[in-house]
Amino acid sequence: MSAHRPLSVEHLNPSVLKVQYAVRGELAIKAEEYRNKLQEADHGLPFDRVISSNIGNPQQKGLDQPPITFTRQVAALMEWPALAELAPNAFPQDVIARAKELQEEIGSVGAYSHSMGVPFIRKNVAKFIEERDGYPSSPDNIFLTAGASAGVSLLISMLISAPHSGILIPIPQYPLYTATLAQHNGTAIPYHLDEPSDWATSVDEIETGIQNAIKAGITPKALVIINPGNPTGALLDEATQEEVVKLCERHSLILLADEVYQLNLHRPSTHPFASFKKIVSRMGSPIGLVSFHSISKGVSGECGRRGGYFECTNISPEILALIYKMVSVGLCPPLTGQIGVDSMVRPPKEGEESYELWKKETDTIHEALASRTKLMAAKLNALPGVSCVDSPGALYLYPQIELSDKAIEAARKAGKEPDAFYALRLLDETGICVVPGSGFGQKEGQWHYRVTCLCPGVEEYVGKLESFHRGFTQRYGQ
Amino acid sequence: MSAHRPLSVEHLNPSVLKVQYAVRGELAIKAEEYRNKLQEADHGLPFDRVISSNIGNPQQKGLDQPPITFTRQVAALMEWPALAELAPNAFPQDVIARAKELQEEIGSVGAYSHSMGVPFIRKNVAKFIEERDGYPSSPDNIFLTAGASAGVSLLISMLISAPHSGILIPIPQYPLYTATLAQHNGTAIPYHLDEPSDWATSVDEIETGIQNAIKAGITPKALVIINPGNPTGALLDEATQEEVVKLCERHSLILLADEVYQLNLHRPSTHPFASFKKIVSRMGSPIGLVSFHSISKGVSGECGRRGGYFECTNISPEILALIYKMVSVGLCPPLTGQIGVDSMVRPPKEGEESYELWKKETDTIHEALASRTKLMAAKLNALPGVSCVDSPGALYLYPQIELSDKAIEAARKAGKEPDAFYALRLLDETGICVVPGSGFGQKEGQWHYRVTCLCPGVEEYVGKLESFHRGFTQRYGQ
Repeated sequence: MSAHRPLSVEHLNPSVLKVQYAVRGELAIKAEEYRNKLQEADHGLPFDRVISSNIGNPQQKGLDQPPITFTRQVAALMEWPALAELAPNAFPQDVIARAKELQEEIGSVGAYSHSMGVPFIRKNVAKFIEERDGYPSSPDNIFLTAGASAGVSLLISMLISAPHSGILIPIPQYPLYTATLAQHNGTAIPYHLDEPSDWATSVDEIETGIQNAIKAGITPKALVIINPGNPTGALLDEATQEEVVKLCERHSLILLADEVYQLNLHRPSTHPFASFKKIVSRMGSPIGLVSFHSISKGVSGECGRRGGYFECTNISPEILALIYKMVSVGLCPPLTGQIGVDSMVRPPKEGEESYELWKKETDTIHEALASRTKLMAAKLNALPGVSCVDSPGALYLYPQIELSDKAIEAARKAGKEPDAFYALRLLDETGICVVPGSGFGQKEGQWHYRVTCLCPGVEEYVGKLESFHRGFTQRYGQ
Repeated sequence: MSAHRPLSVEHLNPSVLKVQYAVRGELAIKAEEYRNKLQEADHGLPFDRVISSNIGNPQQKGLDQPPITFTRQVAALMEWPALAELAPNAFPQDVIARAKELQEEIGSVGAYSHSMGVPFIRKNVAKFIEERDGYPSSPDNIFLTAGASAGVSLLISMLISAPHSGILIPIPQYPLYTATLAQHNGTAIPYHLDEPSDWATSVDEIETGIQNAIKAGITPKALVIINPGNPTGALLDEATQEEVVKLCERHSLILLADEVYQLNLHRPSTHPFASFKKIVSRMGSPIGLVSFHSISKGVSGECGRRGGYFECTNISPEILALIYKMVSVGLCPPLTGQIGVDSMVRPPKEGEESYELWKKETDTIHEALASRTKLMAAKLNALPGVSCVDSPGALYLYPQIELSDKAIEAARKAGKEPDAFYALRLLDETGICVVPGSGFGQKEGQWHYRVTCLCPGVEEYVGKLESFHRGFTQRYGQ
């Protein structure tokens, strides 16, 4: 009879240890500690609030991007349908009609739905895609999810069949991809985006990644494209998208198109968004495509509801049935997230009672984000040793910072990556939490950080970034 | 340059093919097809509605267990806080106060929360556990989840370190466990519950399972106990629970206690529930324990919100940090589910405005479930060739059915397990969808099915089960 041994790290799945997710890593944990400390009267910190610029979370406290009223009114009625009778004047008529229609289709938001999501909502998503792209879409190919992350994670787990299978990911990338690959014992095959060309995607770079992988005995299974980019905000032009599709044809790669920022376009006339579904359909390409979308970004910013979808194109019914089986083990995506998806794909139309307010709210969000991004990029670019691509999309900037040998040495002594060291000092001095570039990937010897463009008091916010940088540069030289 | 090959099943992670989840399997898919067909005028089906008794989904259409008004009122105000001013008379004062308190703590339900869940709600969960058990509980050990399933799946994925590590699961079991084990290449180590003793858990059976596993080269890492049982409804007595804890001590097993039905007690005076947290605390045992709870069952039945939590006991800070890292990749559990957890652990108290209604609603649900279960068990037991333990807990009955050689032969010819054949005929003839015992596990040569006790028109419902069984018996002999 053996003595009791407590569970220790070496008893765990070793892939758990390999997972890294910087967006909620060391910096975010320290930011939380500071936030708690600020509640003490004598906190002794040189700032009075923590700004969590590490994550695209528009509605968080302190940023307070208001939710779209229409979405929340529908959701409130779905929670407690009796309100339509108890407080009829509190709601616009189109909201009451919408909620009633959803109730008839769904029943209670407290019930499990179909594991792929409510059929009616999937039909509405298909219509939205058809209107966006001008090509057919079927609800049978659409899976509603708990945010895009849940779908990405599922697809990667299904595609990785052995440690020697890999998935091509952009560098820099959103670390969900490397984290999920580590978790499922897959290999990340990096391809670099080109910073001097505003973070352009180059098919030659992807081809190089593939050849390197094959030489190393890794089988590339899929290609991840994040468009608009995260953290870069870059948009692919259609010619590049066509080349990407041809490359997927040549190498029989599944294309995983992360398009969650498709609505966050700051200069749509020069940097428009085209979905890969549209490109693949127009080309009549046979490649397997999975496109991800989410209610967490765009103008809805409904991160907390956990809603999203993915659409499968050229994926066989046999594999769709397997995806369905896998999602059914998790029962269903949250109904409140599903309803959020419905509101996103069916916003009020011109002439409907809620339209004016909806238009005003969404315009305000678009304009604020575009102008903040522009201002922040300009101010960051004016700093010594900082260069920053002015993102045409998404919610972030990803400035490159030159760090002196002295700063790099100080970082080594502190046991940190140099950009993590910079970001930690920034947090310590200003309460602003960003994510160091080492969390997203960057070329050897380069340093970046990702910062969100969500803070309402942008002048003060970017002012803090500026004065910190000047102080840091003074201390460590340039 | 290779020609494009479409993605086919053999390119996928092979563990995906091994996953089985009968609760939403063949029967459920056929039930959906019938539900769609019923919308045609000339459907030609011998029933006019499909009853999805395959899944514990109390609020689904047709069953329509009403949600708890308090929960939904708070949720509606969280969705659209302006309602408190726009329609103040629609809400009880305690609801308005509760929503205001939550808004101050959480901010918007559209924002990501802490990845472990909102700290304030975790504090409330800890208080709830302390009051339930009489032992300390810390919010630092509590993770809010998207239903219990998400937590179970995460823990299993972390514990399975190689194909030769295994987890002890009861037979019959809720197939989430075998599905998740298959997905993560772990081995299910079965131990049988004792049907003649009302599905009792026997530590000797578990010990046998362990010895068999070790002989087969499998390392047992954890023990799953479902209490109250699913599909059996059985409750462990405290003496057995203590023996289970000692067994975990002897074999250094992590105890995974699935306690999602802790509130569904039909005869609490003779079959009370004691949490494993209480037993482990009282014994001062050092075993690692993870206890799961959910808002999907109990009296709330809020499956669609995807809310739940797990509490870790005797799990080291190092491992808690790894769990935190893993949940952070998924960002956070749905906020509307988290709010549902808050309402579950902090229902209205006596003297508060919402208390009377809450009491009436929850009493009604408890009584309806207890009386339906009793009636259904009695009627099923009266049928030839059926024996059914009268469940003291949970939402299900798991009758054993004798099947004649002729029926077994007919099933073989149809390429089905005999109990799946029986369940398919039941669905074809009555529109009632149950899950065959082969989905949960049973002893060789025995046949069962799981049926929920949720249908409001129970006389008609059980009448259909009876007349189908008599017809089936007549056709195939006994």
